[in-house]
Amino acid sequence: MNVESYMIELGQRAREASRLMARADTGRKNAALQYMAEAIEAGRARLAQANREDLDNGRTNGLDAAMLDRLELTPARIDTMVEGLRQVAALADPIGGINGMNYRPSGIQVGKMRVPLGVIGIIYESRPNVTVEAASLCLKAGNATILRGGSEAIQSNRAIAACIAEGLKRAGLPETAVQVVETTDRAAVGQLITMPEYVDVIVPRGGKGLIERISREARVPVIKHLDGICHVYIDSDAERAKAINIALNAKTHRYGTCNTMETLLVDGAVAAQMLPELGDVYRQAGVELRGCERTRALLPDALPASEEDWSTEYLAPILAVRVVDGLDEAIEHINRYGSHHTDAIVTENYSKSRRFLREVDSSSVMVNASTRFADGFEYGLGAEIGISTDKIHARGPVGLEGLTSEKYVVLGDGHIRQ
Amino acid sequence: MNVESYMIELGQRAREASRLMARADTGRKNAALQYMAEAIEAGRARLAQANREDLDNGRTNGLDAAMLDRLELTPARIDTMVEGLRQVAALADPIGGINGMNYRPSGIQVGKMRVPLGVIGIIYESRPNVTVEAASLCLKAGNATILRGGSEAIQSNRAIAACIAEGLKRAGLPETAVQVVETTDRAAVGQLITMPEYVDVIVPRGGKGLIERISREARVPVIKHLDGICHVYIDSDAERAKAINIALNAKTHRYGTCNTMETLLVDGAVAAQMLPELGDVYRQAGVELRGCERTRALLPDALPASEEDWSTEYLAPILAVRVVDGLDEAIEHINRYGSHHTDAIVTENYSKSRRFLREVDSSSVMVNASTRFADGFEYGLGAEIGISTDKIHARGPVGLEGLTSEKYVVLGDGHIRQ
Repeated sequence: MNVESYMIELGQRAREASRLMARADTGRKNAALQYMAEAIEAGRARLAQANREDLDNGRTNGLDAAMLDRLELTPARIDTMVEGLRQVAALADPIGGINGMNYRPSGIQVGKMRVPLGVIGIIYESRPNVTVEAASLCLKAGNATILRGGSEAIQSNRAIAACIAEGLKRAGLPETAVQVVETTDRAAVGQLITMPEYVDVIVPRGGKGLIERISREARVPVIKHLDGICHVYIDSDAERAKAINIALNAKTHRYGTCNTMETLLVDGAVAAQMLPELGDVYRQAGVELRGCERTRALLPDALPASEEDWSTEYLAPILAVRVVDGLDEAIEHINRYGSHHTDAIVTENYSKSRRFLREVDSSSVMVNASTRFADGFEYGLGAEIGISTDKIHARGPVGLEGLTSEKYVVLGDGHIRQ
Repeated sequence: MNVESYMIELGQRAREASRLMARADTGRKNAALQYMAEAIEAGRARLAQANREDLDNGRTNGLDAAMLDRLELTPARIDTMVEGLRQVAALADPIGGINGMNYRPSGIQVGKMRVPLGVIGIIYESRPNVTVEAASLCLKAGNATILRGGSEAIQSNRAIAACIAEGLKRAGLPETAVQVVETTDRAAVGQLITMPEYVDVIVPRGGKGLIERISREARVPVIKHLDGICHVYIDSDAERAKAINIALNAKTHRYGTCNTMETLLVDGAVAAQMLPELGDVYRQAGVELRGCERTRALLPDALPASEEDWSTEYLAPILAVRVVDGLDEAIEHINRYGSHHTDAIVTENYSKSRRFLREVDSSSVMVNASTRFADGFEYGLGAEIGISTDKIHARGPVGLEGLTSEKYVVLGDGHIRQ
């Protein structure tokens, strides 16, 4: 069978399974998640064996250390998968909830019911634990899933898929509700993202290159996460200690995450007070600074920032620093150079905080908090499948609700249009 | 200047205007809408003159009668445009509203603020009144708009655009917040739908061919409205009078609308009671019936329905009729052959109504009401820019809220991630 017809068959089975999943009881979905956790617990030896095969192949194929690290299913990572399944089981079920049911002048009642999206295709790179994370969230939201992991993780993904299938079966749900693409042929991705009859949305998880390619070629909506060029703006009315703490935390808490600050903006009125101290704390943390001219006048150690620095996601101990004259210039800079991900102001001023919140066009806008809070767990979504930089559908951290849609519900008593 | 750079320039201006629109006061937006209404009132003679030019050209170019009718700006249609502007001014402003602001264990507060989408491209065919309808809704939702009407309506659209610009200017809003594409070159559409840097979403309004072509070629999300193959299912527990009234209204209230019923399903248990009477009322209304074999056994006049009839949007006095055995078969038929637009059950049975609402995968599901109610005005949205058959983002009638997005708002007091 060629790849195209293989993928169409997966799609047809997923579409069929999605109808059954859409009406599955909350209790049954939770049972499936619990049974999957049990199957993974019981299958630790098999998972470890499959993962060793992938690692051996990876070494033979010359994968680099970072790639091999992401590929490895350590006992701790298996624990996290099991724990994750139980957490998703504990989340409230969004499906079927009805909101805003109101009477209209015609006499009908109109409201909205939350419903699954249908079939979700997940495309991801090496980390096999994504298989469980993605499948569990999609399942709880009543969707069927087609998972396409990296070819380097194929044995691990198959072993995990067997545990997922066992959980679904024990709970009386269709095993085809979660399908792992069994071929490593790259054409499978091309087919998956161009069959709107069978797939309702694609969620790519991986590097920017993968996501851009998929967005360009997809004929299906894509919930995408591109870069995070996040800012902290220290306003002239900032409290000094809050400003230093937030600016340090937003940059140094973790370097490789999308909600890490990449550019610090400081109001000219307080630059002389703030920058020397900030220079010290960043120096101690080992952060390289790249500043505008006014920054470098106060911090001679800082390297000169080029125009390109303002729109670079370093994901590293490097920080661009710019002195701006007031709120308007800060907002202008953020909307122009940022990636509309997460941006924060530090200020005690009511009017300026209010303007920042309204006028900065980002998926998360913050006052006096570290950009590192932009996260599904921190926001109370329970879990996240990613952080969307789109404006359409889901924006910011995407939890269960981002994997659902709504439909209108109309109740009448024989009502007809006049 | 070539078309490509002309469109990019429109896009850049729209993007700039969208930043100003995003922070425009509700009062100012409403004033602009009122001033536009006044400008159209005052400009009736100019509008009529421009429209006559289009009509003359249309006749010369051999447009058919239906096309010329859609193109015409009668005094009544101008009244409707003016009235529409005042209605949109009276709608509540969705922008800036904050929902679900709650404290999290970390101490931060997290909520969601409603924000504009940014720049919306509207592509439509002959009807020039769409220019005002679309622009006013997009404006109230804080967006900038690029309007590409049919080339046959170019003079009318220019005259309307002048009134819109006047209203924006008088209210102190950027005139570039609503731009009409001034070239009739078809390449303009190709450019408009492939510049995600400047356009956030495309709303095509027109025939299925136009919408399918745009969806296929767009590199920007499209809020689309394909066909409406709507069903009414008369259950064995239906009340006879309600069933007859709804089945008649859903088909005959208007033939050409997307929420008109195209297939009637009748439970076999009540077919012998229901179908002869239904046959009479449809015969009186001049509706041609195309039935399955069981239907034709009860209604010998009915033509035989082919497989194709079950998935045809007639938009005409034709109705497909099928006898099914119970709710499961009805739901199966609707989910398989329908277009996931609007479907209704007529029943007095609690459990069956509950299952129908949950299991039918359509943008509107109804109990004991005519499918003709699927409409932005009837649902209380105030106005609609169309009915979306997508699942992502907006589903069903799209009003102001469908032209917006949300962003997360986080408030802290110097909070940092631990």
